[in-house]
Amino acid sequence: MTARHLFALTPGEPAGIGPDLCLLLARQAQPHALIAIASRELLAERAHCLNLDIQLLEAGPGNWPSAPAPAGSLFVWDTALTAPVVPGQLNPANAAYVLATLTRAGQGCVDGHFAGMITAPVHKGVINQAGIPFSGHTEFLAELTHTEQVVMMLATHGLRVALVTTHLPLKDVAAAITAERLIRVTRILDHDLRTKFAIARPRILVCGLNPHAGEGGHLGREEIEVIEPTLDRLRGEGIDLIGPLPADTLFTPKHLDHCDAVLAMYHDQGLPVLKFKGFGAAVNITLGLPIIRTSVDHGTALDLAGSGRIDSGSLQVALETAYQMAASQD
Amino acid sequence: MTARHLFALTPGEPAGIGPDLCLLLARQAQPHALIAIASRELLAERAHCLNLDIQLLEAGPGNWPSAPAPAGSLFVWDTALTAPVVPGQLNPANAAYVLATLTRAGQGCVDGHFAGMITAPVHKGVINQAGIPFSGHTEFLAELTHTEQVVMMLATHGLRVALVTTHLPLKDVAAAITAERLIRVTRILDHDLRTKFAIARPRILVCGLNPHAGEGGHLGREEIEVIEPTLDRLRGEGIDLIGPLPADTLFTPKHLDHCDAVLAMYHDQGLPVLKFKGFGAAVNITLGLPIIRTSVDHGTALDLAGSGRIDSGSLQVALETAYQMAASQD
Repeated sequence: MTARHLFALTPGEPAGIGPDLCLLLARQAQPHALIAIASRELLAERAHCLNLDIQLLEAGPGNWPSAPAPAGSLFVWDTALTAPVVPGQLNPANAAYVLATLTRAGQGCVDGHFAGMITAPVHKGVINQAGIPFSGHTEFLAELTHTEQVVMMLATHGLRVALVTTHLPLKDVAAAITAERLIRVTRILDHDLRTKFAIARPRILVCGLNPHAGEGGHLGREEIEVIEPTLDRLRGEGIDLIGPLPADTLFTPKHLDHCDAVLAMYHDQGLPVLKFKGFGAAVNITLGLPIIRTSVDHGTALDLAGSGRIDSGSLQVALETAYQMAASQD
Repeated sequence: MTARHLFALTPGEPAGIGPDLCLLLARQAQPHALIAIASRELLAERAHCLNLDIQLLEAGPGNWPSAPAPAGSLFVWDTALTAPVVPGQLNPANAAYVLATLTRAGQGCVDGHFAGMITAPVHKGVINQAGIPFSGHTEFLAELTHTEQVVMMLATHGLRVALVTTHLPLKDVAAAITAERLIRVTRILDHDLRTKFAIARPRILVCGLNPHAGEGGHLGREEIEVIEPTLDRLRGEGIDLIGPLPADTLFTPKHLDHCDAVLAMYHDQGLPVLKFKGFGAAVNITLGLPIIRTSVDHGTALDLAGSGRIDSGSLQVALETAYQMAASQD
């Protein structure tokens, strides 16, 4: 890793715990320069709330930090709120503020000012209430960077799980597992494990769609008709794929000890194990983007904003993961 | 627990690791009398294969053991094979033998000779090849005991997971989550936790069907239209239910520390976490039967039969669970 790396941190929803997490984090020095893209006033107020003495250092275009801030301080690219913030109270008036911070971070990555961006949670509902169509960080950054297909991967120490489908009603999952989608997602996963994680030849375990991976067609035919032929085609491109395997026995040392990532067919097939294993220390990574983006794996926790009763473990892992990914690209 | 309890053990598929597991287990004394329902000749041959010196003690109707066998010995209710057994080689000729052992065990439970039965794995395919329709232990025992609805529950230390649907293609799951099925399964789960596990007022965590439990209808409407009203109705009957909760965050200490069982909507939503947590020490329990039945959570492992390279951890937990369930009924 090199010291020249500068990373952007977006605290997300101002009424949630994002600002708190950034301030808690600033108590210790980071190994790389980190710049919070947020309202300086908001951070000062929240620090007061939390009884934290964090020095907020001005930074921004033309004035990028060249070294990490000392412990107890945080670089801030001041971004103006529209309305004052009350911890725990959503206000659609600040939706444009939230999107401005994301645009500054994402565009800064595209323009080469930042080595990567780390995001604290946003609240989709309040942004939509403000009349702005918004379905999440991932989709927002895909659009900003003109990316057609992204892949959601969650990671914790010793386990990475990527998803073929994400936020779909369960009844629509089987039909969404097409050869085309499986090819696009698997190629991105393989490519990004190579380029952003420095794994020379990633080995990927692939879950079946059905229980027992279809049990030879007795419990569903998608493995035989779609998944197996598609994996064979991808193996022909040099991708190292094992499966389709039954999801209930895949997450055991016999299999996991020899793989770099698991590819699950849908949300609740892959994520319960990951969050069970990685509770409080899991990170959400968007693959397929031309930039590095990691995120905490939890929500805005509005009821805890300003309380101090929060754990910054997931944000810490999100930062470490972004640092490692940037170093892998060097 | 009382010493009068006698338990039946079925080694299942004779060419698999079931006989090996029973012999490995017999090296230590059990706290209760245990009778293997199997071919004495098969067990003697397999013991020779494994270089194990286990004394096989005759037992059966009119000659039930009244105390546990000493370490290094095993009570056997001799049940004749049709054809000789080669470890690892399935033979449809012995399908009737396998079913005879299950009938003896199940009927013996119904007749009050046994306090419960513990099953090693069978091979469904070879029984069907023999022309006998057979879809598993559970269905076989349901028919034997004239039980309309059974519930599959897996357990390991600190976690129990029961399933609303089991071996269904994923595309058919959403339609199978009906109020009627959810009511029947939840009532059985609550009833059996009370009567077979001595939990006075079981608290059950219920998963949603869709990712994020439907996120207020944005990711599927089954929670709103079926699951929530059904849980309310069941709460009115005095069942303590929490949910529907998002499956990906349910399996964390915040929730699990305060519950007796998790009810998952389908196979790959609930079992990956359970088998990850309980690897090598998980047990499969059939609820809803008028008898106690537990089973190992793994398959026949044909390639390992006679090798000695196996772990009897799951069978040990299956035995301990059956003992505890019987004691809870006293």
